[in-house]
Amino acid sequence: MRFLHTADWHIGKTLAGYDLLADQAATFKEIEQIAKDQQVDAVVIAGDLYDRSVPSEAAINELDRELIQLNLKDQFPLLAISGNHDSATRLGIGRQWYQSTAFFLNTDFQSAFQPITIKATQFFLLPYFGLQQAKNYFHNDSLRDLNSAMKAIVKKMTSQFDPKKAHVLIAHFYASGAQRVDSDTNMEIGGLSAVDTAIMAPFDYVALGHLHSRNALKEERVRYSGSPMKFSASEANLEKGVWIVDTDSWQIDWQPLKPVHQLHVLTSSFAQLTDPQFAEQYAKDDYFVIKLTDRQVIPDVMTRLREYYPQIIILERKNGFQAPHSQVDRQAASENPLDLLQSFYEETTNNPLSKQQLKWATAALKQAQKED
Amino acid sequence: MRFLHTADWHIGKTLAGYDLLADQAATFKEIEQIAKDQQVDAVVIAGDLYDRSVPSEAAINELDRELIQLNLKDQFPLLAISGNHDSATRLGIGRQWYQSTAFFLNTDFQSAFQPITIKATQFFLLPYFGLQQAKNYFHNDSLRDLNSAMKAIVKKMTSQFDPKKAHVLIAHFYASGAQRVDSDTNMEIGGLSAVDTAIMAPFDYVALGHLHSRNALKEERVRYSGSPMKFSASEANLEKGVWIVDTDSWQIDWQPLKPVHQLHVLTSSFAQLTDPQFAEQYAKDDYFVIKLTDRQVIPDVMTRLREYYPQIIILERKNGFQAPHSQVDRQAASENPLDLLQSFYEETTNNPLSKQQLKWATAALKQAQKED
Repeated sequence: MRFLHTADWHIGKTLAGYDLLADQAATFKEIEQIAKDQQVDAVVIAGDLYDRSVPSEAAINELDRELIQLNLKDQFPLLAISGNHDSATRLGIGRQWYQSTAFFLNTDFQSAFQPITIKATQFFLLPYFGLQQAKNYFHNDSLRDLNSAMKAIVKKMTSQFDPKKAHVLIAHFYASGAQRVDSDTNMEIGGLSAVDTAIMAPFDYVALGHLHSRNALKEERVRYSGSPMKFSASEANLEKGVWIVDTDSWQIDWQPLKPVHQLHVLTSSFAQLTDPQFAEQYAKDDYFVIKLTDRQVIPDVMTRLREYYPQIIILERKNGFQAPHSQVDRQAASENPLDLLQSFYEETTNNPLSKQQLKWATAALKQAQKED
Repeated sequence: MRFLHTADWHIGKTLAGYDLLADQAATFKEIEQIAKDQQVDAVVIAGDLYDRSVPSEAAINELDRELIQLNLKDQFPLLAISGNHDSATRLGIGRQWYQSTAFFLNTDFQSAFQPITIKATQFFLLPYFGLQQAKNYFHNDSLRDLNSAMKAIVKKMTSQFDPKKAHVLIAHFYASGAQRVDSDTNMEIGGLSAVDTAIMAPFDYVALGHLHSRNALKEERVRYSGSPMKFSASEANLEKGVWIVDTDSWQIDWQPLKPVHQLHVLTSSFAQLTDPQFAEQYAKDDYFVIKLTDRQVIPDVMTRLREYYPQIIILERKNGFQAPHSQVDRQAASENPLDLLQSFYEETTNNPLSKQQLKWATAALKQAQKED
């Protein structure tokens, strides 16, 4: 039995307003190709299929198309769970019918204890859950944290183990030892803290979703696949990909995914960044996080940088701003307060002043100067 | 071939803020029982399964449960289309898998021309559509209105007719001759006007959704089933139910549905309505539209009526208000302006003033009296 382990697709996610659907569609094609090349027996998606609980119609159409391709056209069995970004109800529509073509989507806590058997492997599909769900299910209010809940869950699952088979858990939570990256924002909502990986020892493999880095854990058999795309500045240097898990040989191979558009973090001076020779080494349609080393006010900074790097998702000052204490600075400001305002607005909001805003600001400054 | 024709379930609809889900679940049970008793070969749902394009999770769970019951548990083939209240995308999630158990859900205009054959009947499933969709599909900008679009649609459908079979169209629009009722609010959005029933003559039966009255058309073979529940004051006197259509004998029978809670329109005086003997003939958990015949201001009117009729969905004045011209009226008002305000607010919003609003109003009146 060989399966592909992926997670955290976050279909419908935007990066600072930029629509990623086309990139996500292209990344999906890469994953599909790996599944074909590796001749896997199943594809595991460990939660956060959508980015939002109420996804847009465009996001729904895209995920629908991807799942139809994998399951109905390519005929891969699918094993998927809901993550914290998904609405269990909305993602779960139709799941009762999906089983007929070996698409096993679990969004219900109580269905997690019924294993799905494919070849010689039992898969347990545990969706993202809140502590209260576990308390209700086990009629046990003494389950104080995620670790005690997971102990009860794993105990109940092991009671379903067929000793002749391999046992794989698919889950979506924060497992301890994991390093966090910036885009996992909602991680501890609901009082859920980290799960100790030792609790999951009865399983031969644990396919996790939630954290976006494959390096988040240093365990042989408990792994995050990470997200297939870079969704935040902290992921800029992570290699993205999927795991190919062979349950006979227990060989676990990494298959990297080529980013459709790179995400670069550039830490540099305005002068260097706007040097055409420097800028031309980057593709115009890549995404950029820019950490300016300059400390002085730079008029119209975002507009000027976007000439070279149209898709800037974050602009920040590496060394902060020059303190406006010196007489010179104050004089500079008073000489052209509108420039100062424009620059401040742009650096704060990542957008230039609109024409209307500029009009208001000009009028207000004129008024203020009169009052002087 | 016998099928049950229903439409306009509007799962998730509320009546003046009252949640109808429990009533809708009970009504569904009645429909299911009729399908079983009548031993139908299929259930047709002609659009508006949901009340809103983005239904609540509770509504999704309810519809999901109903469809699972009919199709997966009772094993009825289902034929359904999206209506103008549904989002084609959101309702259509999973439809590619539903076919495996003879649940045919069409939300795509372009798929309307591929008939679904059950026994000796070809069903054409035409979802609610906009004129632009028809123009795009036929590459024909000269389709000026719904009638010309429907002519093209029917022509293309008839080219798929197997002459040995019966032909049924399932559609969701306003067909001409139809009487409108109040709850079909969005009917002509998008420039769609009425479709002439003559255009649909090639079909042996047309199962329509959109209008909520089964009496909306006076045609033998082109029928609205109407909604299974009363969704507006104008539907108070309509009998609700479903059609049972036999395509061999072409016998078409009406099967009425018993309302879970009645919707009464009471046109009467405040004195009579608050007479305990009068009031006790109505069940407290029914819904009420009250048309007061009184013309004078009645302090605290909604609160006092709700003692007898807790679920008032509309309160209006049959004969308007007494003109406040006479000296007596003005005096009455100036004697107790707070009563007047309370009464006005209640009759306008159907709710009493909140404690905070009452505090503000009292303070404002005190202030106004001071200024006098």
